Amino acid sequence: MSALGPSLRRRALLLGGAAAVVGGGTAAALAVRDGDPEVRPVAVAPVGAETVPFHGVHQPGIDTLPAQAHAVFLGLDLNPGSGPAEVGRLMRLLSDDAARLMSGRAPLAAEDQELAVLPSRLTVTFGFGAGLFDAIGRAGDCPAVVRELPAFPADRLDPRWSGGDLLLQVCSDDPVPLAYAVRRLVRDARSMTSVRWVQRGFNPARGPEPAAVTPRNLFGQRDGTANPASGSPELAESVWVRDGPSWFVGGSVLVLRRIRMDLDTWDDFGRVGKEMALARRLDTGAPVTGGGEFDEVDPRVVDERGMPMVAASAHVVRAKARTPAERMLRRGYSYDDGPTPDGAPDAGQLFAAYQADAATAFVPVQGRLAESDVMNLWVTHVGSAAFVIPPGCADGEFVGRALLGT
Amino acid sequence: MSALGPSLRRRALLLGGAAAVVGGGTAAALAVRDGDPEVRPVAVAPVGAETVPFHGVHQPGIDTLPAQAHAVFLGLDLNPGSGPAEVGRLMRLLSDDAARLMSGRAPLAAEDQELAVLPSRLTVTFGFGAGLFDAIGRAGDCPAVVRELPAFPADRLDPRWSGGDLLLQVCSDDPVPLAYAVRRLVRDARSMTSVRWVQRGFNPARGPEPAAVTPRNLFGQRDGTANPASGSPELAESVWVRDGPSWFVGGSVLVLRRIRMDLDTWDDFGRVGKEMALARRLDTGAPVTGGGEFDEVDPRVVDERGMPMVAASAHVVRAKARTPAERMLRRGYSYDDGPTPDGAPDAGQLFAAYQADAATAFVPVQGRLAESDVMNLWVTHVGSAAFVIPPGCADGEFVGRALLGT
Ligand code: HEM
Ligand code: HEM
Repeated sequence: MSALGPSLRRRALLLGGAAAVVGGGTAAALAVRDGDPEVRPVAVAPVGAETVPFHGVHQPGIDTLPAQAHAVFLGLDLNPGSGPAEVGRLMRLLSDDAARLMSGRAPLAAEDQELAVLPSRLTVTFGFGAGLFDAIGRAGDCPAVVRELPAFPADRLDPRWSGGDLLLQVCSDDPVPLAYAVRRLVRDARSMTSVRWVQRGFNPARGPEPAAVTPRNLFGQRDGTANPASGSPELAESVWVRDGPSWFVGGSVLVLRRIRMDLDTWDDFGRVGKEMALARRLDTGAPVTGGGEFDEVDPRVVDERGMPMVAASAHVVRAKARTPAERMLRRGYSYDDGPTPDGAPDAGQLFAAYQADAATAFVPVQGRLAESDVMNLWVTHVGSAAFVIPPGCADGEFVGRALLGT
Repeated sequence: MSALGPSLRRRALLLGGAAAVVGGGTAAALAVRDGDPEVRPVAVAPVGAETVPFHGVHQPGIDTLPAQAHAVFLGLDLNPGSGPAEVGRLMRLLSDDAARLMSGRAPLAAEDQELAVLPSRLTVTFGFGAGLFDAIGRAGDCPAVVRELPAFPADRLDPRWSGGDLLLQVCSDDPVPLAYAVRRLVRDARSMTSVRWVQRGFNPARGPEPAAVTPRNLFGQRDGTANPASGSPELAESVWVRDGPSWFVGGSVLVLRRIRMDLDTWDDFGRVGKEMALARRLDTGAPVTGGGEFDEVDPRVVDERGMPMVAASAHVVRAKARTPAERMLRRGYSYDDGPTPDGAPDAGQLFAAYQADAATAFVPVQGRLAESDVMNLWVTHVGSAAFVIPPGCADGEFVGRALLGT
C-alpha cells in the first residue's frame, strides 16, 4: 500500500513511456495518450493510481488488504449448451479484460481510457460454481461443499440471492472505476451468460480513518479484528489450497452469504447487551473483559462475584476457530438496499469468507453459530452461494485454464 | 475544507470535553464516552471528522463543494390527513436529527455514537414538494414550476422515480455514516410518511484525485466545469432566492431528473464524435477548439477551411445560460443499478440542479436541450421531481418553520 513510488513508475511504463512522474509524491502528471503531439497532462493522485497485479500464483482480491471500500459481486449463469470451449473463450476474454482494467487500461475493444486510468486498487476475482463444472463435463471435480452447502436451521434463503455458475467479485476504493470495470466485464460476458444476481457492498471510505483501522459494519462493530494478519503465514495457510489437483492448488473457496441485519431492534437494544452478544466492546472492539482490540476474548474470565463475564453463546466465542482447519479470511461488505416503501431498513452484510476448504471451515463454524449465537437475535441468512476460486494465472494465460484443459 | 484544526476543536467540544486533540494534524485521538473512567481513544483521521454546519442562512448540501462522494435522495409522501401540525412535528424532529448527525453525534434517541462520530462532511437537505404545500393548506404558495414541470418532448418519465411530498438529500464522503444517517432519519419519519423512492448516487471517491479536480461522469466526461465557482457571487446569485416571501428568501429550488445514459452505444461511438457532441475534450474537459478546461467554448471558431469546429447542437452550446436568470448549480451524481438480467447497463445520472427560479433556469435550458442536443443520442430522462428548498434555520429552529407558521 505504501509502495506509491513503484506503483507510479509501473504505471508510467504501462502508459507507454509518455508519462512523467512529477511532484513531491502527492500528485503526478501522467500523459494518457501515447504519441499525442500535444501532450495533455492528467492530474493523478496516488490513491487513484494504485494498482494490484492481476497475474500471479493466486488471484487478486483475496489477500488484497485492507479490503477496498467498494465491491460488486456478480453471479452469472452460463447459457444453456455451453461447453468447455465456450467457457474457455469466456475466461480468456474476461481474464484479459481484468488484467487490463486492474493495471489502469481500458479493455482491448474500448477506445477511451478516461474511466480506466485511476483504478484505485481495482481487483477482479473469478469463482466457479457447480453449474460451471457440470457444463464443462467435470461435475465430479466440484467439491461437494461448493455444490451444496448444508442447510442451517435458521436459513431463510431466497433463490434471488443464491447460486450462480460464475462469480465475479470486483472491488475498488472508488465507485467510478468500479462501475466502469463491471460494465465492461459484463458486456464481454453478455453473449455467453445471463446475470443471475448483482450485490453491491461498501466499507468505510478510504481516508476518513487511517487504513490500519478495522472497518465498522452497520451494527457499528469493528468487524475483522481476529482475521489472520495481512501477509502472515497463518493467512496463507487458512486461505490457499495446498493439497489437491493441480488446477486447484493456489486457489481457494469462497462462501458468500447475504445476511440481513435487523437494525431497528439492534438500535433499541441496550448497549451492555450488544457488547455481551459479541463479547467485544462497541467503541474499540476490545474484549469486554479488558485489554486492546487485538487481544483475544477469554471466556473463562469471571467478575469479582465469580460470575463469567463472557456469555458462552457470545458470537466470537462460538465463531472462534477450534482447529487450524476451521480458519478463514472474512472479507465482507455492508449492503444497504433500503429503506423499503414502509420505511423499514433492508440492509446487512455480504459475508464473504475465503478458505482452503469450506467443509472444514465455514460449515462447522456456521453450524455452531446456527445452533447458538446471541447475534442470531438480529441476523438472518437470506442468500447463499459457494464457488471454487481457481489459482491465479501467468501473463498470457487465463484463470481456470488448467481445469478447462484447453 | 482546509479548516481541520477548528473542525477538530469543534468536535472536541461536541464530545463533551473528554476529547483530546493530539498528533501533528493528521490524526487525533478522541474519547467518545464522556465520564468513562477508562478513557478509550478512538482513532480519528481528519477527513472523517470534517463537519459542515447545519444551522445558517441557507441549508447545507447545496454550496457544500466539492459535492461529497456519495448521496442518497429520498422522496417521501406524507400520510393521508397530515396537516400543518404533523408536518411541523416532523420537520422539528428531522431538523434536530440532521443537526446532530452533521456534527458527528447520533440522534437524541440513539445510544450508540460509533457510526455517527465520523460524518465525513455529512449534509442533510430538505425539500418541499407540491403535496406538502397542499397538506398544510398553502397550495397557492407552491411555485407553479415546482408543482408541475412542463413536459419535454423526449421525456420517458416513470412514476417510480418521480414526484414526492418531501425530499431528503443526504450526502457524505463515506457510505457508512451516510447509511446510518439515512436509516435514522427514515426511522423518525416513518410513522408520518411512506417512502416513494430512494435513489443512490456516487461521484469519484475523495482521495483518488485532488479535490480541486472536476469529477468524471459515467461517460468519462469531466462534468461540472462551467458551474459557478464555489463561494463566488455568481453562485449565490444563481442559487439563492432573493425576492419573494420571507419563508422562501435564502432558499432555492431543486430539480432532480433521473437521466439514463446509454453506455453501450456511447462506448462504441467514435471518440471524435463524442467530443463533438459535447464540444469539450474527453481527457481534459477543455474546449475542442483549444485552451484549458476552464476556458469557454466559442461556437464561432472555424478551422483552416472556414468550417465551424463546434456543432451548433453541441451540448454545452445549447445548455449555456443566455441570461443570468438561466444560471443554475449542477450538483449531480452517477447512479448504477445494473446490470439487468440480460446484462444491459442500467445507469446514468441523478441530475440535481439548484437555482433561484426553475421557471427561468432549468425550464428554458432543458427546453433547448430537448429540442436539439447531440447528447440526446444517448440520454433519456426517466424520472423527474422538483422541490422548494426552504432557507436554512437557526439553532433551536427547524427547516420550514416560517412557511408552516407554527
Ligand atoms: C451479519 C452477520 C455477522 C456479523 C455482523 C458479524 C460480526 C462479527 C464481529 C463484529 C466480530 C468481532 C471482530 C472480529 O474478529 O472480526 C466477529 C468475529 C468473527 N465472526 Fe462474525 N459476524 C457475522 C457473521 C459471521 C458468520 C456467518 C461467520 C462464519 C460462519 C462468522 C465468523 C466469525 C469469526 C470466525 C470471527 C472471529 C472469532 C475469533 O476468532 O475471535 N461471523 N463477527
Ligand atoms: C445525463 C445527462 C447529462 C450529461 C451526461 C451532461 C454532461 C455535461 C458535461 C460533460 C458538460 C460540460 C462540462 C461542464 O461544464 O459541466 C455539461 C455542461 C452543461 N450542462 Fe449538461 N449534462 C447532462 C444533462 C444536462 C441537463 C438536463 C441540463 C439542464 C437542463 C444540463 C445543463 C448543462 C449546463 C448549463 C452546462 C454548462 C454549459 C456552459 O455554460 O458551458 N445538462 N453537461
